[in-house]
Amino acid sequence: MAVGTESGSGGVAESAPSTPMSAMTTTPISARSVRWESDMPDIEEGGGGLERPLLRRRGTNTTSQMAIVGANVCPIESLDYELVENEVYKQDWRSRGKLQIFHYQILKWVLALLVGLIVGLIGFFNNIAVENIAGFKLLLTTNLMLQNRYKAAFLWFISCNAMLAAAAAALCAYFGPAAAGSGIPEVKAYLNGVDAPSILAPSTLFVKIVGSIFGVSAGFVLGKEGPMVHTGACVASFLGQGGSRKYGFTWNWLRWRSALLWRTFSTTAVAAMVLRSLIEYCRSGNCGLFGKGGLIMFDVSSQVTSYTTMDLAAVVLLAIVGGLLGALFNFLLNRILRVYSYINEKGAPYKIILTVVISLVTSCCSFGLPWLTACTPCPPELAASGHCPTIGRSGNFKNFRCPPGQYNAMASLFLNTNDDAIRNLFSGGTESEFGVPMLLAFFTAVYSLGLVTYGVAVPSGLFIPVILSGASFGRLLGKLLGALTGLDTGLFALLGAASFLGGTMRMTVSVCVILLELTNDLLLLPLIMLVLLVSKTVADCFNKGVYEQMVRMKGLPYLEAHAEPCMRSLVAGDVVSAPLIAFSSVESVGTVVDTLRRTGHNGFPVIEDAPFAPEPELCGLVLRSHLLVLLRAKTFTADRVKTGAAEVFRKLAPFDFAKPGSGKGLTVDDLDLTEEEMAMYVDLHPIANRSPYTVVENMSLAKAAVLFRQLGLRHMCVVPRTPGRPPVVGILTRHDFMPGYIRGLFPNVLRE
Amino acid sequence: MAVGTESGSGGVAESAPSTPMSAMTTTPISARSVRWESDMPDIEEGGGGLERPLLRRRGTNTTSQMAIVGANVCPIESLDYELVENEVYKQDWRSRGKLQIFHYQILKWVLALLVGLIVGLIGFFNNIAVENIAGFKLLLTTNLMLQNRYKAAFLWFISCNAMLAAAAAALCAYFGPAAAGSGIPEVKAYLNGVDAPSILAPSTLFVKIVGSIFGVSAGFVLGKEGPMVHTGACVASFLGQGGSRKYGFTWNWLRWRSALLWRTFSTTAVAAMVLRSLIEYCRSGNCGLFGKGGLIMFDVSSQVTSYTTMDLAAVVLLAIVGGLLGALFNFLLNRILRVYSYINEKGAPYKIILTVVISLVTSCCSFGLPWLTACTPCPPELAASGHCPTIGRSGNFKNFRCPPGQYNAMASLFLNTNDDAIRNLFSGGTESEFGVPMLLAFFTAVYSLGLVTYGVAVPSGLFIPVILSGASFGRLLGKLLGALTGLDTGLFALLGAASFLGGTMRMTVSVCVILLELTNDLLLLPLIMLVLLVSKTVADCFNKGVYEQMVRMKGLPYLEAHAEPCMRSLVAGDVVSAPLIAFSSVESVGTVVDTLRRTGHNGFPVIEDAPFAPEPELCGLVLRSHLLVLLRAKTFTADRVKTGAAEVFRKLAPFDFAKPGSGKGLTVDDLDLTEEEMAMYVDLHPIANRSPYTVVENMSLAKAAVLFRQLGLRHMCVVPRTPGRPPVVGILTRHDFMPGYIRGLFPNVLRE
Repeated sequence: MAVGTESGSGGVAESAPSTPMSAMTTTPISARSVRWESDMPDIEEGGGGLERPLLRRRGTNTTSQMAIVGANVCPIESLDYELVENEVYKQDWRSRGKLQIFHYQILKWVLALLVGLIVGLIGFFNNIAVENIAGFKLLLTTNLMLQNRYKAAFLWFISCNAMLAAAAAALCAYFGPAAAGSGIPEVKAYLNGVDAPSILAPSTLFVKIVGSIFGVSAGFVLGKEGPMVHTGACVASFLGQGGSRKYGFTWNWLRWRSALLWRTFSTTAVAAMVLRSLIEYCRSGNCGLFGKGGLIMFDVSSQVTSYTTMDLAAVVLLAIVGGLLGALFNFLLNRILRVYSYINEKGAPYKIILTVVISLVTSCCSFGLPWLTACTPCPPELAASGHCPTIGRSGNFKNFRCPPGQYNAMASLFLNTNDDAIRNLFSGGTESEFGVPMLLAFFTAVYSLGLVTYGVAVPSGLFIPVILSGASFGRLLGKLLGALTGLDTGLFALLGAASFLGGTMRMTVSVCVILLELTNDLLLLPLIMLVLLVSKTVADCFNKGVYEQMVRMKGLPYLEAHAEPCMRSLVAGDVVSAPLIAFSSVESVGTVVDTLRRTGHNGFPVIEDAPFAPEPELCGLVLRSHLLVLLRAKTFTADRVKTGAAEVFRKLAPFDFAKPGSGKGLTVDDLDLTEEEMAMYVDLHPIANRSPYTVVENMSLAKAAVLFRQLGLRHMCVVPRTPGRPPVVGILTRHDFMPGYIRGLFPNVLRE
Repeated sequence: MAVGTESGSGGVAESAPSTPMSAMTTTPISARSVRWESDMPDIEEGGGGLERPLLRRRGTNTTSQMAIVGANVCPIESLDYELVENEVYKQDWRSRGKLQIFHYQILKWVLALLVGLIVGLIGFFNNIAVENIAGFKLLLTTNLMLQNRYKAAFLWFISCNAMLAAAAAALCAYFGPAAAGSGIPEVKAYLNGVDAPSILAPSTLFVKIVGSIFGVSAGFVLGKEGPMVHTGACVASFLGQGGSRKYGFTWNWLRWRSALLWRTFSTTAVAAMVLRSLIEYCRSGNCGLFGKGGLIMFDVSSQVTSYTTMDLAAVVLLAIVGGLLGALFNFLLNRILRVYSYINEKGAPYKIILTVVISLVTSCCSFGLPWLTACTPCPPELAASGHCPTIGRSGNFKNFRCPPGQYNAMASLFLNTNDDAIRNLFSGGTESEFGVPMLLAFFTAVYSLGLVTYGVAVPSGLFIPVILSGASFGRLLGKLLGALTGLDTGLFALLGAASFLGGTMRMTVSVCVILLELTNDLLLLPLIMLVLLVSKTVADCFNKGVYEQMVRMKGLPYLEAHAEPCMRSLVAGDVVSAPLIAFSSVESVGTVVDTLRRTGHNGFPVIEDAPFAPEPELCGLVLRSHLLVLLRAKTFTADRVKTGAAEVFRKLAPFDFAKPGSGKGLTVDDLDLTEEEMAMYVDLHPIANRSPYTVVENMSLAKAAVLFRQLGLRHMCVVPRTPGRPPVVGILTRHDFMPGYIRGLFPNVLRE
């Protein structure tokens, strides 16, 4: 769902919104200065205000500069992984001694380890908090039940859940709207190069941690895995940007940009070690009532030594049905999220109400379904040893209104934390524990609750709902096919979870790794791989993966790895937005300030023209942020002459040009220039990136897109094919490669 | 070690070898036809024959067009991952129906699964063959020993090994020189874009499989893991290229180019499943004498529940020393390989002699060291149960000249297959089994033998020697530090292996995965990660990883992911090789044939000039292979006019232009043209790639290198910065980015 606002008022748009290429080529830019005359439609004017009668196909770049992040709408920016090779950079690079480089290397490592340490601590804290809050809630409920005070138990249970839900939703709605949802689509988009200031903000981090604890403790059918991924990204961004000026935490570390595999790996190692040692510590009973939870290690204890063709056929059937149900899940989730976004748009109170309603429904299911389930007699051998029914919180055989010697199977799944429910479903050698009608009811409930829960304004992961419903589906199918196969129903539950994960998320390799980590049994690898392969293939016939769907629905301009087929019929010049706004290599201060104020563009080509070059040629590309730093230093001259880099370095250090953290950059309003200064000139040579990536205007758009995406660019200059034209005919940005924009320009191109 | 030959006589060079850019710019190419006058130095003339007194820095591109593949020298080519967007491609793409695309998709999947199936079968065959050959050899030796016929046993053992070694070496030397060594450097280089026809040839595949079985059975200190990687690559290439014309296996499948992660994953899954089911089959005793080996699953049975600070300190110490020894291994291996390459260059008989000599040394060590080792009394509890000493092939406690109730620890390691030796070293709960002096002797022997064995002309993996020496080192250190830590010596052996792998190969993530697969215990993950991290960091201070070293030594033009610092001071125009050889868009047949005959270039820019364009402009790039196909079809005209694509499609189908498998392409000599035809014209428009990637001549070389590497290019056009010059000033190829070439051009650039 594309957001309504066409191009926001924030100064964040990259692409000029008006006259496209063909108009452009008929009105070549003059060497300087007339380019920003007010008759050019501009981004603040909503774009397309002044239509021209030329060859233009459509006025504005229709892709939105805003996206839904969490449950709110945010302005977005692109990230730039290109090396800005200007004189400042070169000077900086030359001036660094070996010691400084070594220092920088060490710093990056320390940072990576610190991120691991902090994320490990957060993960541990999260686990402990959930175990204790949810445990306390469930313990009191169970105690009230044992005293036959059912109404009190239900009231306590439902109000506890509703309060926790309301707290989580209020935090999300008022303090960190970007923290709602799983966060994986946002992180995915960030890694793709899309930045919204709020995605990784400190407030988001705080709400993500606390809201996730409340949400999980509130008994929702949601997980804490996705939020933990987002939390990790927030922590790394916070540390890497040298803290947050807004909240008064700042330090002067260097910016930290792209994480490498190897450093990521060590960070993960540190996080895992921290978590492990803390869990060891808790084994001694130092962490409150319920410290024994922690790392989920499901025990699929059935030794799979061999399987027959019949077993394989059953597994393939499971994978196909799982894939179908996964695709259906994606389809329904998409519909439900569209409805929810109308409710969420109405404001914070509506978000809270929606969350509480879903909480009440969930509580009624959790408490009501066991109520409707008949008691099952305990297996004799367990009853004798006193393991059934279990009194208290953990254990497979919940006593819930049942006479001694019997247990309530539904309560074993619903009146537990989600982690424990999964552990119970995965457990091997327990064929008779859960009956077919009971599994069917549980599956239906969890599948539906998972669908309606995701869109509420609470940090909510999708892994747990998908695994829960997949596991109950797998166990159900395993029981139905029991006569045909010799495989354990616990194993069927695991494979069912795999088929659902493959069917919804379509991430095969990572899901495989996650399931292996959960079960710690590498011998299951071939079966899990087979299931993932089949279910992903089946589901791919119907729709896209759930995260891709969400990225699209949120309006995040995600660049696909492969170019769309329609791009093969177009050339770069076809989509370029014009009029081009360019600067002379030595430009009047007034012009620069005026342009910065009037446009939202973030990169401007610099043209070398008379008297500095006999014919106009492309000198480079300047960034808005660098221009602002340069203007504030006021290295101006009265005449139009080159001042050179030395003048700049007298007033500024290379560090002044370092990329600011989100929300910390200068704006035009920070400049304080007099009338005389506005009439002076500023030399842009020292800050111009002399090696911008360029494509010729008749380059195939598909190949230009590959270049743009592979190199992680933010701006790409389009140069003319033939001489005698202005040296640059346009700038391509992320938005120019969006299929929606291209379809808007050329409605017929897809049908060819 | 760079190979002596400067630029081979094969038609494989991509870059023009002479006058660089600065000379070039002073003599702009005329619009057409004079470019290949004979006064231009050419590749067949050895390059640099006609030095010019201009601004040239150095005449030829000094990077070799040849590389050592296996133990021989081969001509190399670059691979090209760029989409050739010419009219043929567009026509092909347009003409494909949905059914054909679906068919193509299915075909790719079938191919992927088939590769998995075949590789699984080969792996299984390999295992079984080694187990049976080596097992038979060792069984007979043991039997002779038990009869006290020591001399006969030694003679049988040493001659068996020598014969197997000679057979493997002869196969390698005469039939598949490219099969020598591990093959990982070659596969790495291939994935980077370097192709030598022999790397993935069917003969290489055959020798790799059989030679590896012989080599491992011969008792060398080498592994079969690297060769298996290479084998898999060969199988995929063989199937993907539609078989081999040379050996009479051909089929008309489409070419198969780039493998995606997801398809790779399924291929692996199939291979794993095939292997597993075959091993199941063998458990029933259907696979000869020794069918029980198979998948190595080391049993580090010690349950690591917790570790103290002291334990961690010991592990870090182990990792540091392991990193140092790993770096030393790389250094020594480098030296030894240089010596060996002199021997190997002398011819096949020398290769065989070297191999047999190393085999004799290995045999003496394997048989002699146990001889010198004193017998150890069996642990009483094992002696009572009859598990010590073990008679026959497997088991920890080898009886070797020892009286009953005693065993020879050295024989347990040496008179075993390498897999069993590793299993013995890793085994937990066996503190007292191996003594300190014995471990020291074994470590020294294996470390040295691993070094001297790798370079012989036999398929030989490095994993096993590194793991063996690492494991013995770890166990040794574990025994020495035994008083300080409570960790099992088997665990120390595993961590020692990890430290050696980190120290030599520097591949952390994959090594971690491999070790986890071997031990099947995810709880060891944090410790293994820590060890890898430390040992890699330590070793990185001294030299590069062993595979990077080998890629460099073999002269394979590997493009690093990061540009060299010196490239930041240069621009693309600085390294471009000239004179540029270009074609007109409608060119005389004689000129084209002449050029193809006289140069080895694989890509030529096409210039659109009068009368087709008012001013010369870059029309595109044509490939040698496409030119040859076009010329053979003889779509010539008497006058210099455009014929267009229709004429071409009347005679040729898009499939005719498909990339031929190695050694299957046309050459100039396949053309049979009359004098009249040579005087006619050929229209190059239909086969010209209209969207070649271009950089401006003043683009920073570092950024051009990033573009080249990221997009997997083979040719990149350099265009002029200012108008009024020829539309393309040069072509950049892989060789132009090699640090050696750049240092040759600008000897001072690195010292800045």
